[in-house]
Amino acid sequence: MDDGTTALLARLIRGQRIAALGTLRQGAPLVSMVLYLPSPNFSALYLHVSRLAWHTQDMLADGRISLSIVETDDPASPAVDPQRLARVSVRGEAALLAEGAPLQEELKAAWLARFPDSAISFELADFAFFRITPRDARFVAGFGSIHNLSAEALVAASVDVSK
Amino acid sequence: MDDGTTALLARLIRGQRIAALGTLRQGAPLVSMVLYLPSPNFSALYLHVSRLAWHTQDMLADGRISLSIVETDDPASPAVDPQRLARVSVRGEAALLAEGAPLQEELKAAWLARFPDSAISFELADFAFFRITPRDARFVAGFGSIHNLSAEALVAASVDVSK
Repeated sequence: MDDGTTALLARLIRGQRIAALGTLRQGAPLVSMVLYLPSPNFSALYLHVSRLAWHTQDMLADGRISLSIVETDDPASPAVDPQRLARVSVRGEAALLAEGAPLQEELKAAWLARFPDSAISFELADFAFFRITPRDARFVAGFGSIHNLSAEALVAASVDVSK
Repeated sequence: MDDGTTALLARLIRGQRIAALGTLRQGAPLVSMVLYLPSPNFSALYLHVSRLAWHTQDMLADGRISLSIVETDDPASPAVDPQRLARVSVRGEAALLAEGAPLQEELKAAWLARFPDSAISFELADFAFFRITPRDARFVAGFGSIHNLSAEALVAASVDVSK
């Protein structure tokens, strides 16, 4: 990818707040909305989810997941061709983060900075962090501009090349 | 669901243009962005996709899919709690629409009205319509307002109750 495309991917992953999480439920796909937090170097994406949610039960049963992050569409602007929206599909493994892990407090602070309305979720016993470790990613930077990325290439894209 | 919640679901399905499609790829989930067209009574959701795309190959191999439609998030508005966005997760079966089916021309006209920039896709031999038949749906109308819907309940929600 050229520098402009790399910067677009980094802005997409850092700039969006919601993603579509695909899990396996009784062997079939289930897609649901989640909030996410990328680690600074894109080696991980974190979710803070309730054990009462289907997708959480699914991840505990089978860690294979996919996460899709899409540029904001404005359906009220018919002039914008939605086929040209930038989007990335990550495939990887989700795992419950151990309670008491040193990372927990750091993640909580970063999560609250990103989602100030979610403070209540840290008071509820059923919420927990999951770490998604990307295996690969497919980045569509616009119509026909498709890039297959390894986990290493995703990490490389986290560096701000414009600096 | 009360009338207001039903109307919210109908507006969400009709008002958005993009969805997150979950397919099975080598037994694991893959989530990717698609454009979609709901049938007027929500008994079907149509996709017009390229056979070159991974999700199309996946649907041809195994029709079990999930489709998530989410209210537009504005990440530039931190005052909006993204956990409160309305969203619906449909689970169902995808099947290639037979060429020459009487519905093809009607669908093409409706698709072009919704996606005027997609005319080129009808000139390409690798694009085809898929029909998604919902089996059930899970509608989250905001934080904690969760509704499990049968396919019949989804059809019932297509009727504009405000009239």
